[in-house]
Amino acid sequence: MLKTHNCGTLTKADVGQTVTLNGWVQRRRDLGGVLFIDLRDRTGIVQTVFNPDFSGDALSVADRARNEFVLAIKGKVVEREAETFNANLATGEIEIRVTEIEVLNAAKTPPFPIEDAVEVDESLRLKYRYLDLRRPEMQKTLLLRAKAAKIFRDYLDGQGFIEVETPILTKSSPEGARDYLVPSRVHEGEFFALPQSPQIFKQLLMVGGVERYYQIARCFRDEDLRADRQPEFTQVDIETSFLSQDQLLGMMEELSARLLRETVGVELELPFQRITYADAMNKYGSDKPDLRFGLEMEDITDIVASSDVKVFASVAAGGGVVKALNAKGCASWSRKELDDLQPFAARYGGKGLAWITVKDGEWRGPIVKFLKPEEIEALTERLGVEEGDLLTFSADKPKVVADVLGNLRLKLGRDLGLIDESKFKFAWVVDFPLLGWDEDAKRYVAEHHPFTRPNEEDLHYFGTDPGQIRAQAYDLVLNGYEVGGGSMRIYKREVQEQMFNALGLSPEVAQDKFGYLLDAFEYGTPPHGGIAFGFDRLVMLLTGRTNLRETIAFPKTASATDLLCDAPSEVELSQLEQLHIRTVLKPKPAAAAAAEAQASAQGEEK
Amino acid sequence: MLKTHNCGTLTKADVGQTVTLNGWVQRRRDLGGVLFIDLRDRTGIVQTVFNPDFSGDALSVADRARNEFVLAIKGKVVEREAETFNANLATGEIEIRVTEIEVLNAAKTPPFPIEDAVEVDESLRLKYRYLDLRRPEMQKTLLLRAKAAKIFRDYLDGQGFIEVETPILTKSSPEGARDYLVPSRVHEGEFFALPQSPQIFKQLLMVGGVERYYQIARCFRDEDLRADRQPEFTQVDIETSFLSQDQLLGMMEELSARLLRETVGVELELPFQRITYADAMNKYGSDKPDLRFGLEMEDITDIVASSDVKVFASVAAGGGVVKALNAKGCASWSRKELDDLQPFAARYGGKGLAWITVKDGEWRGPIVKFLKPEEIEALTERLGVEEGDLLTFSADKPKVVADVLGNLRLKLGRDLGLIDESKFKFAWVVDFPLLGWDEDAKRYVAEHHPFTRPNEEDLHYFGTDPGQIRAQAYDLVLNGYEVGGGSMRIYKREVQEQMFNALGLSPEVAQDKFGYLLDAFEYGTPPHGGIAFGFDRLVMLLTGRTNLRETIAFPKTASATDLLCDAPSEVELSQLEQLHIRTVLKPKPAAAAAAEAQASAQGEEK
Repeated sequence: MLKTHNCGTLTKADVGQTVTLNGWVQRRRDLGGVLFIDLRDRTGIVQTVFNPDFSGDALSVADRARNEFVLAIKGKVVEREAETFNANLATGEIEIRVTEIEVLNAAKTPPFPIEDAVEVDESLRLKYRYLDLRRPEMQKTLLLRAKAAKIFRDYLDGQGFIEVETPILTKSSPEGARDYLVPSRVHEGEFFALPQSPQIFKQLLMVGGVERYYQIARCFRDEDLRADRQPEFTQVDIETSFLSQDQLLGMMEELSARLLRETVGVELELPFQRITYADAMNKYGSDKPDLRFGLEMEDITDIVASSDVKVFASVAAGGGVVKALNAKGCASWSRKELDDLQPFAARYGGKGLAWITVKDGEWRGPIVKFLKPEEIEALTERLGVEEGDLLTFSADKPKVVADVLGNLRLKLGRDLGLIDESKFKFAWVVDFPLLGWDEDAKRYVAEHHPFTRPNEEDLHYFGTDPGQIRAQAYDLVLNGYEVGGGSMRIYKREVQEQMFNALGLSPEVAQDKFGYLLDAFEYGTPPHGGIAFGFDRLVMLLTGRTNLRETIAFPKTASATDLLCDAPSEVELSQLEQLHIRTVLKPKPAAAAAAEAQASAQGEEK
Repeated sequence: MLKTHNCGTLTKADVGQTVTLNGWVQRRRDLGGVLFIDLRDRTGIVQTVFNPDFSGDALSVADRARNEFVLAIKGKVVEREAETFNANLATGEIEIRVTEIEVLNAAKTPPFPIEDAVEVDESLRLKYRYLDLRRPEMQKTLLLRAKAAKIFRDYLDGQGFIEVETPILTKSSPEGARDYLVPSRVHEGEFFALPQSPQIFKQLLMVGGVERYYQIARCFRDEDLRADRQPEFTQVDIETSFLSQDQLLGMMEELSARLLRETVGVELELPFQRITYADAMNKYGSDKPDLRFGLEMEDITDIVASSDVKVFASVAAGGGVVKALNAKGCASWSRKELDDLQPFAARYGGKGLAWITVKDGEWRGPIVKFLKPEEIEALTERLGVEEGDLLTFSADKPKVVADVLGNLRLKLGRDLGLIDESKFKFAWVVDFPLLGWDEDAKRYVAEHHPFTRPNEEDLHYFGTDPGQIRAQAYDLVLNGYEVGGGSMRIYKREVQEQMFNALGLSPEVAQDKFGYLLDAFEYGTPPHGGIAFGFDRLVMLLTGRTNLRETIAFPKTASATDLLCDAPSEVELSQLEQLHIRTVLKPKPAAAAAAEAQASAQGEEK
């Protein structure tokens, strides 16, 4: 009983054909001795009918089938009567009159129904991931993910990129805090590390003359996890030689356009908007702005520098900034809504949020009485104030103002329906600072990494004001998420030396930390640069999900546990002995140990 | 000076064009004030000319360039004079008259010349892999490898297979001896394991209704390494539901045919030969026979069972076998050559090799005088003995005879030039035994794995003679190498129970060892099966290499060391503390430690 057709793709065009289908029982109904079984495979669902008139012995076999049994059936495709058409089903105009059946396998009752939009605890879904994957939505996601990978590959292959695999067992990086380590059986006391990215290898491939490289690469980071992080994740890793930044970004735009066209049918406008890091922070309070809507922050520090609103004046005097957001049509907010702005600001480190409503031509709010007429006039002009507006003000260090108003902007964008959810708004954020000042260490640190190329025209700042140097680095943002990022790399020895010098690294220390890459750079390194796309996140946005786990066949929980196979787990002592290690455990109070054993027995997430 | 063209693809058709090239200096010659620089990029080499007549300042800049400098040059493509055509170069009919030059980067003298066919110690090549990769042969290999991956993907995508990524951080398998372990920061005392293959996940994807899965997957095995093993390796992993073994193998044949056609331009004959495991062992003494030539072993046990050649008779009486190889034309071997057969046999566990030469119509050799006329007659017929033949005989347990004569067959095949090296001879080895008898443990063990499906018609042997059961397992062999292998899997509970029973596993132990897979099997498992191709080995055979390391961009040595980045290596104590482990080292004598430190400083392979 080998299948001849898929369940979900049979149509009226197949009427009259005898087909063999293999699939799972989605639903079974007995209507007065006639049995209807909806049979499901990865392509969809079709109704099969068992009737004493034509099914013979198959009827009694089918009668024993339950949900998720695996069946092979043979029968004839017939058109349903018009009044029984099922518009919810792609195959809703036909059904199969079954003449033969074989139960390929039985099934226990699944712990949750195999349907979309069913409320199931996520940890149950993850434990029974093999059942969760049967749901149409998960099948669609896996399919789209595979398709997206294929589009990346096809485009890059077409542009002369070569897919090269780089090692998973490699060396711990200089900042190894986030490295997963792998003890070695052969080399006592030594460890491999899993790569946080193939960064060094892809640069070595450029030194090796590969010229255009890509890889859909698994990366690993052992860090505190958040909802949108996974300990292992996938990135589309790209590096090129002999291309300018503009050429590379142009290619990536073409690639993105093709990706969107062929997955979600959206046509992107090219070239993408480019926004400098400084502008992004100033206008949107974020280096990954959601540009599907406006609602830009306005700097009003100059207007209120000598205001009688004391907090404004003192912040301005102390080198801080005062910025405002104009929330159109929100003057009608309730007192409660306005009061809620304060804890909202506090959540992002702000000390408060001043507000003004403009109702019936009048400005109202705690600070209004302190504003001079010329300040009101200037604000009206700068913020485009009109009847019905709600003005909000944050005054603090630039970073705090950006966080508070940036997040308020996002909240308002959502709450006021300013966001067109069907839109995919890509943009490049460029001109990132090369160096950031580490207040604790009292020295500059690389914002991207120490091989990021500085802007040519900023090189003179190395001697005077390194914080002013912009990097030839770029992030690709989509709807408020960073979906890619990269940089052109330093390839000239003298620039690299200036960079190390700015980072306070002596040549000896630099050699110690980055030895084999620096050695490689001595043997004829071409100008090169690259980018990496966060593949999981990209798939998440393309499928309209809000959680990376939904895009991965077998993900780990927020606490880095695989609930399906119960990993990580304890191993045999003999295994550790062979690896020349032993565990060093903190002694546990007996009660805690017992509780944990119980939790673990119940398969709970730890 | 951004490149407009590739070096290696310029032809007469480009004459008259002004081109900008970026590449490395392959060679620089000064012929009486005219400078010739061969410029190389990944596409090949082109000759550039610097002449005071047209190069201006570029000449003096070029004069400072040395091998492996990175240059950008601009110039005009001109046809060479006919007598200076270089037939060894694809671009040999043209050259570039350079008008502008920029030194993109300088280079130290490389530790070995960037050319094919140069004798360089492999450990030096691996340490400077980024230079080694510049060699045309390595570039070609990387390109072919990428192309092969693309062919696999394109074919499988076209057949409705979905590429799904499975975890790298997973659970230690029941036979965890070869697992690489990864300690967990979050889960004290617990470990992830790197997968030896995605076997369990791909079966779970079938339970999950994915129906056709593939992945070009990284796999890991921490074991003693041989020349053709790597601690991390790549396999093309495939699994399907609802297909018969014949359907699956047919697809894989189509896929292989396409692979060979599009990589090496060889047209394969379909379907592939299928040979049973029993036949392969009997005729070729190997389960991965090289079928590019005949020279089959012949069983002569029946002929010599009561021979006066005592070793033959006693082996036959003791349940062993006597087999012969007829090496045509080898009767003229010297005494030395004939004597060398004894140590050769010993190397494969044989106690000796009897031989007979047939020269001038006469049989000669130590055993001839013991052979009865009827034995000679029977041997003549069975072995097709003719003038000039060398007959060799091995008498021992079947396994030993197979090893001795199987390896002698391979040696003769090579030495006698019986092998057509341009040939790609694929075959399926089928009907492997399901179970093997473990003499130490006094029980049956799974030859493939415990989920391999038995042949339907052999099921009755479970109760009587489990060793007789053939498996629905298959290996794909190519020119004497196993390049793929797989099986149909058990999907029926009662068969699985019989299997565990035969393996001596109680239901409780089975549950303990394979719990989550067995649980999954309860919820409606479709009939399924799959295969995995050894991708590194396949690329090795397609590129005519004899070493897996040649096919991998950044391989590890036979002792699992990465000489380029010096991995594995020691890590910070603080890293280990965070992972709740510490190393347990054997104390070293001071002298050994010093020697090791010195060896390591010299970058030697440990």
